[in-house]
Amino acid sequence: MTKLEQTSASMTRRQALGLAAGAGAGMLAAPAVASDTTPAVEWKMVTSWPKNLPGPGVTAQRICDRIEQMSGGRMRVRLFAAGELVPALGVFDAVSSETAQMGHTASFFWQGKAPAAVFFTAIPFGLLPQEHITWIERGGGQELWDELYAPFNIKPVMAGNTGVQMGGWFNREINSLEDLKGLKIRMPGLGGEVLRRLGATPLTLPPGEIYQGLQSGVIDAAEFLGPWSDRAMGFQQIAKTYYAPGFHEPNGTGEALFNVGALEKLPEDLRAIVLEACRAENGRALAESDWENAGALQLLQEEDGVEIRFYPDEVLAALRDLSHKVLEEFAAKDPLSSRIHASYVAASKRLAPWSSVSVRRFLSARDGTA
Amino acid sequence: MTKLEQTSASMTRRQALGLAAGAGAGMLAAPAVASDTTPAVEWKMVTSWPKNLPGPGVTAQRICDRIEQMSGGRMRVRLFAAGELVPALGVFDAVSSETAQMGHTASFFWQGKAPAAVFFTAIPFGLLPQEHITWIERGGGQELWDELYAPFNIKPVMAGNTGVQMGGWFNREINSLEDLKGLKIRMPGLGGEVLRRLGATPLTLPPGEIYQGLQSGVIDAAEFLGPWSDRAMGFQQIAKTYYAPGFHEPNGTGEALFNVGALEKLPEDLRAIVLEACRAENGRALAESDWENAGALQLLQEEDGVEIRFYPDEVLAALRDLSHKVLEEFAAKDPLSSRIHASYVAASKRLAPWSSVSVRRFLSARDGTA
Repeated sequence: MTKLEQTSASMTRRQALGLAAGAGAGMLAAPAVASDTTPAVEWKMVTSWPKNLPGPGVTAQRICDRIEQMSGGRMRVRLFAAGELVPALGVFDAVSSETAQMGHTASFFWQGKAPAAVFFTAIPFGLLPQEHITWIERGGGQELWDELYAPFNIKPVMAGNTGVQMGGWFNREINSLEDLKGLKIRMPGLGGEVLRRLGATPLTLPPGEIYQGLQSGVIDAAEFLGPWSDRAMGFQQIAKTYYAPGFHEPNGTGEALFNVGALEKLPEDLRAIVLEACRAENGRALAESDWENAGALQLLQEEDGVEIRFYPDEVLAALRDLSHKVLEEFAAKDPLSSRIHASYVAASKRLAPWSSVSVRRFLSARDGTA
Repeated sequence: MTKLEQTSASMTRRQALGLAAGAGAGMLAAPAVASDTTPAVEWKMVTSWPKNLPGPGVTAQRICDRIEQMSGGRMRVRLFAAGELVPALGVFDAVSSETAQMGHTASFFWQGKAPAAVFFTAIPFGLLPQEHITWIERGGGQELWDELYAPFNIKPVMAGNTGVQMGGWFNREINSLEDLKGLKIRMPGLGGEVLRRLGATPLTLPPGEIYQGLQSGVIDAAEFLGPWSDRAMGFQQIAKTYYAPGFHEPNGTGEALFNVGALEKLPEDLRAIVLEACRAENGRALAESDWENAGALQLLQEEDGVEIRFYPDEVLAALRDLSHKVLEEFAAKDPLSSRIHASYVAASKRLAPWSSVSVRRFLSARDGTA
């Protein structure tokens, strides 16, 4: 079966007509099941993750698997782990140039190219996972995200979520604003900038150096992700105090990137399939992260002797006020950042009172503590 | 193009081989786009909702649309509103007997057939929407749900979510347990049973009679859904106090039902498509409900003069303890109910501390009130 014949099977019916007779003959001559044959559409997906990294790496592979299943093998997306085809932070450029038709990554990596990209992962004191999904789906977020990446020939969509983060691992207690002064903490991004303004020294150690940094005293504290990933990193062996909440990153939206030309070339059914496969992954991935985070939280407390502590109200109030200020400064940089900030803030003002009345009040009632 | 030829297009490649040459000829002879032709697979979906009812009715139609899109028109699911083919509460039997291959409804309607069905919609002081999704996806919930409906030849999956409910509309204040005594309140299900044990008189007025009941004084209070639906019902015109939280129904999972034989007869790709279309609807529908609930909550307070009040801690504590007790009694009825209850409680015990540390603490920090 030739490549050309295979290709015909993936086209829309109208496109396929000119090739249909040949394709039919080819199929009779090669009676293999879909998964054994060369698919009609073959895509590459470059990712920012090691292969099958718990959370985003597993999500990326599941999206590939679902696309193949739903297309009956007519479309296959081959996943490349970080470094296999391009480096972890080369995903955006690779999709932009169509080196790969698709990528799986997180938007906050692309702030150097498009500053407002940070809004599409997580914002300090910003939107929770389902609130973020609501902003993107219903509050104008998707249209702004599209506009932000359009100059790069990239279409972004949500594709998985790693949930709410924790506030970080500490080797000392934070009882007042004074305790933040001089604190050497691994916290990249806007959260780190907020801490810097309160006298801390934020550092951006790569994940592989956090453990050693905490152990040697190069840093006093470190945030990474949540209980699931953090426990796998072994932080509980060298720090016994785990702070909440993760004020700096209350959401963890995974980002699928499509080369616009490649996406437009797909027949309508396959286009619907790839987009819906990404959408379905939002709830499924969040379920996986929450389930594993919840289990790891239990183990940290019951087996590892880790104490969960909460930032004092005084500290949270200062962090919150500065977060809003830092965000406003950031948004003033360019007109599109400003519009995205305005949309995000409007969605927050609409959604936060409802979350407070519904989810927060319910959780208080269920916990039995005010 | 004959029905037989059309059918071949929907089969797996292996199944299609014997028909491929004929199908190819047929396609040349009838160059229509997929949506203009009779689809290869035609299904009926019966629903418990009026056509395009905001929330679940819109979700049901969107699932039909996505299946048609993703299948390139090879599969079409025709939606029947409540009463068009079978009554709202005839959906389960219709899918069981394959009068329709598929249904869209909510599990709590089927407690008369399978008592534990109530666990798959909402439980007083139970799981929030994403927690519920987590139990189903990761905590063994799906397998138990499958087992519960297997004797009826039905496979259930989640398909949309209407979110957290409110606590109800009141024409008097609830300041103590004493205020519940003699309260005539519209609240069906387990929540109503809990209130009954605290001296209230729960009534099960159908939705269309709630407004009149509140106005005439037949009832003193009523819960229905959340701000979006409740405001559309006009309750704000006759009651000015809206209580939170919705302790009795913290979740609103929509339920898709499949006739097992019909689902198994689908080729693998179409089966993956219908299941993924339902899964993708969980986050999308919840986004819609949360967005609209949040907007309606603002209008209720700012334009309609409605006051949001919260059940006092004393009342919540009594409701919570009795809810657990009622649920345990309920679960003792039969072995499968007991196993489903145990699974639900285990998932709650795992997930609740994580939600408390992550979501609840974050919301407190964002709100700026303890």
